[in-house]
Amino acid sequence: MSHLVYELYYWPMIPGRGEFVRLVLEDADQPYVDVARLPEAEGGGIAGLKRALAEAPLGFAPPMLKFGQQAISQTLQICHFLAKHHGRLPAGASGEYDAQHLAGSLYDFVVEIHNVHHPLGAALYYEEQKAEAARAAAAFAEHRLPKYLSFFERCIEQNGGREPWLLGTDLSYVDLWLFQVIEGLRYAFPKTMSKRTESTPKIVAANEAVRARPRLQSYLASERRIPFNEHGLFRHYPELDVG
Amino acid sequence: MSHLVYELYYWPMIPGRGEFVRLVLEDADQPYVDVARLPEAEGGGIAGLKRALAEAPLGFAPPMLKFGQQAISQTLQICHFLAKHHGRLPAGASGEYDAQHLAGSLYDFVVEIHNVHHPLGAALYYEEQKAEAARAAAAFAEHRLPKYLSFFERCIEQNGGREPWLLGTDLSYVDLWLFQVIEGLRYAFPKTMSKRTESTPKIVAANEAVRARPRLQSYLASERRIPFNEHGLFRHYPELDVG
Repeated sequence: MSHLVYELYYWPMIPGRGEFVRLVLEDADQPYVDVARLPEAEGGGIAGLKRALAEAPLGFAPPMLKFGQQAISQTLQICHFLAKHHGRLPAGASGEYDAQHLAGSLYDFVVEIHNVHHPLGAALYYEEQKAEAARAAAAFAEHRLPKYLSFFERCIEQNGGREPWLLGTDLSYVDLWLFQVIEGLRYAFPKTMSKRTESTPKIVAANEAVRARPRLQSYLASERRIPFNEHGLFRHYPELDVG
Repeated sequence: MSHLVYELYYWPMIPGRGEFVRLVLEDADQPYVDVARLPEAEGGGIAGLKRALAEAPLGFAPPMLKFGQQAISQTLQICHFLAKHHGRLPAGASGEYDAQHLAGSLYDFVVEIHNVHHPLGAALYYEEQKAEAARAAAAFAEHRLPKYLSFFERCIEQNGGREPWLLGTDLSYVDLWLFQVIEGLRYAFPKTMSKRTESTPKIVAANEAVRARPRLQSYLASERRIPFNEHGLFRHYPELDVG
């Protein structure tokens, strides 16, 4: 692995699922090319992304990570792979199982968050499903959001005083995932989330600890970090921020 | 691992996500206890399931698999773990990456299928979101269903003539996942799926090959196999079968 530069293939205009991969690469200080953010003339752009997916034997949907002759897909797998090779897993077999459990649960959470603004599916625009999204948002804020937040708050609490991390003694990739999910939720639902601050002190502290990591500080201030916007997973539609 | 009996914790009344785990255990001939299907007096039932989740350090949602002192969660992780330990992974690192890619894609597909009858979220009953479900079903049948089916058809086609399997020379757990997804889709959307038979001959053949495996034949005919019903992932509501 040692001399390969990773190639990340993901939509160039949104943080989306690709951002979970970028955060692991950045925190682990691994050089990578964010291919679709290169100019089309250099093989980038959406054209470059689509070409790479079409050329990969099992290419289906981004994100995809290439290294050497290998291409791997699915956000959970990519992040777990990077974490394993670059010191971002909790120690021991049990730590690895627990990381996959929490990352998988965060993945489920992200799908539900996306579903709030697209309850009828990604084939229709938000504008075609605004009424349905309003109903989905109310149910999400009342039931699912508190359920997930209180679970992750409890995980940090139960981690044997080794706060602010979810698992083990050091930061693992699931802490980076939780950071991104909380950032996204605060962007999408600022009013709802501000009401949740008091009941989630461990999550708030974890968020600050991730943000303070020197490599991430400089990444988050760079142009490599794509701002949240209304094309991605986490969208701010004030009419949905009703929790 | 050799002398442990697995304990599966999952809702006792639906095939749901637990069925993906059961199929791997059954095909690999691994003894297991389906704990929540035991009587409550023997520690089973929904009460037994909820107690086990509450007692597990990071317990959150079923399915959960226990062996010895270890509990692992998340359907993808559980199945990959079992496949790895019991000969249901394609050979080589690349085979393992590809398996996680296809299993992850099937997982995404399943979440979208569930979303068709619950577009506004699981907190509301189907009866509270029938109109929204009808719109979601139309978009699903037009866009997402053909996209996923043609992808998996192509995977089998491209597997170097080693049909009917998705990856490698032998059955792997992703073939069991595809089987369950196709069975579920046929149950939920019989009219829509019958129109797709001609364009997915490889998937149809794969389905028959899985069903013909001796251990699965006897499993599928047994009471251990929970029939599809209107409480699970795959639900037959004729009004949604419109593709």
